[in-house]
Amino acid sequence: MSRPSFPSARAADRSPSSPPSEFEHVDFAPFAAAERDAVHRAIATRRDVRGEFHPDPIAPDVLRRLLEAAHRAPSVGFMQPWNFVVVRSPDEKARLHAAHLEAHAVEASLFEGDRATQHRRLKLAGLDRAPVVVVVTCDRDRCGPVVLGRTADPATDLYSCVCAVQNLWIAARAEGIGVGWVSILDKGRVRAILGIPDRIEIVAVLCLGHVREAFASPELEQRGWRRRLPLDELIFEDGWGRRPSGGV
Amino acid sequence: MSRPSFPSARAADRSPSSPPSEFEHVDFAPFAAAERDAVHRAIATRRDVRGEFHPDPIAPDVLRRLLEAAHRAPSVGFMQPWNFVVVRSPDEKARLHAAHLEAHAVEASLFEGDRATQHRRLKLAGLDRAPVVVVVTCDRDRCGPVVLGRTADPATDLYSCVCAVQNLWIAARAEGIGVGWVSILDKGRVRAILGIPDRIEIVAVLCLGHVREAFASPELEQRGWRRRLPLDELIFEDGWGRRPSGGV
Repeated sequence: MSRPSFPSARAADRSPSSPPSEFEHVDFAPFAAAERDAVHRAIATRRDVRGEFHPDPIAPDVLRRLLEAAHRAPSVGFMQPWNFVVVRSPDEKARLHAAHLEAHAVEASLFEGDRATQHRRLKLAGLDRAPVVVVVTCDRDRCGPVVLGRTADPATDLYSCVCAVQNLWIAARAEGIGVGWVSILDKGRVRAILGIPDRIEIVAVLCLGHVREAFASPELEQRGWRRRLPLDELIFEDGWGRRPSGGV
Repeated sequence: MSRPSFPSARAADRSPSSPPSEFEHVDFAPFAAAERDAVHRAIATRRDVRGEFHPDPIAPDVLRRLLEAAHRAPSVGFMQPWNFVVVRSPDEKARLHAAHLEAHAVEASLFEGDRATQHRRLKLAGLDRAPVVVVVTCDRDRCGPVVLGRTADPATDLYSCVCAVQNLWIAARAEGIGVGWVSILDKGRVRAILGIPDRIEIVAVLCLGHVREAFASPELEQRGWRRRLPLDELIFEDGWGRRPSGGV
């Protein structure tokens, strides 16, 4: 497999590229093949779920592991700017679902002809079915105004929260829990429904629930909305627009 | 373990929560315990690497798997707005490193007292060591002006690219490849160095390379910059500020 072999003469050399000994450090070896394949499989078989949620509750220990995974995300300046609002209340979920349906209708009206018809018929959120909704937010003031790593790109704290979302999503796949990101929502409505302060940014509204069978490839691909792009068309080498000369 | 058991009476019921039969669907069962643990381990032991890169090249098949993982990210409206600029050229890497050092000095000047001194001494990017740099970009016009799922939150295409970054990062951990996100960079400089058009958003500059030993916990935590926040303080239930009554 792809375990790299380092020259043995360098095996004892911990300098300059190993952490200084006053800090705790650990082995970073590649995973065994079966474990590595499990990670790739979680990534490859993760789906954006809308219609396939089962109503069974998610066990608290499972949900806890998913939130732990989210909390393990990288964050700019170790800011950890996220919060997780876990919504199980049927009333709040129903209000979120109603807000989504309104936003869905608004968005459908922006498309024309067959595309508008197709959009109107798509189920684009599972808020009416998922037993749990998790809203991931960003507290942009958590560390004061100057944040290590954020000064050159103020969006990086929002990006940290997206990394938390993706951690949760991949961990959920391994647990048999489907996740759907509901982006067709007026954030003002979400804010009002859940009492989220104005200073807190709403990054993602996620539906979670057990799923037994999922689409084998992205639902929008199977429904003919858009095709998967060939990866080779998306890779450049050493500068924009330069096609790789050999393999990547 | 946490494999949910569904009542057998419902096992044959594919309606209404299973995909319609005209679409290809697959089993979504929880992973076996060892595989599930591998996914959690990849997430938990992923690090933001700056100083621990080895100069050994990354094998093309390994890098390919990482870019495949990135390309498997969710994207709003199945937009797949990302490109990957793979930089191995020593000249381009040196120019990116110089740009980072300038931005680092600018950022250090925004802190005061001990914090400024500490910031100035931190190594905050591995551009001088990593054998490969991958720049992840977002083509916001890839699907025309109206994108399914993006109308209510125009940032969602950028978020899709961040999901691609996190997929790559987690897959890299399983491959023994360290990744560091370099956010302390003037994007105009990066754009000029790599010839990235103005219409393309630069989302992330990532350093990649083999790592033998990594910090056991986030480097900024071990160096005393900030502490890990307790997860329980970050979780609310059914509304902002409401502490969960039981377990999550």
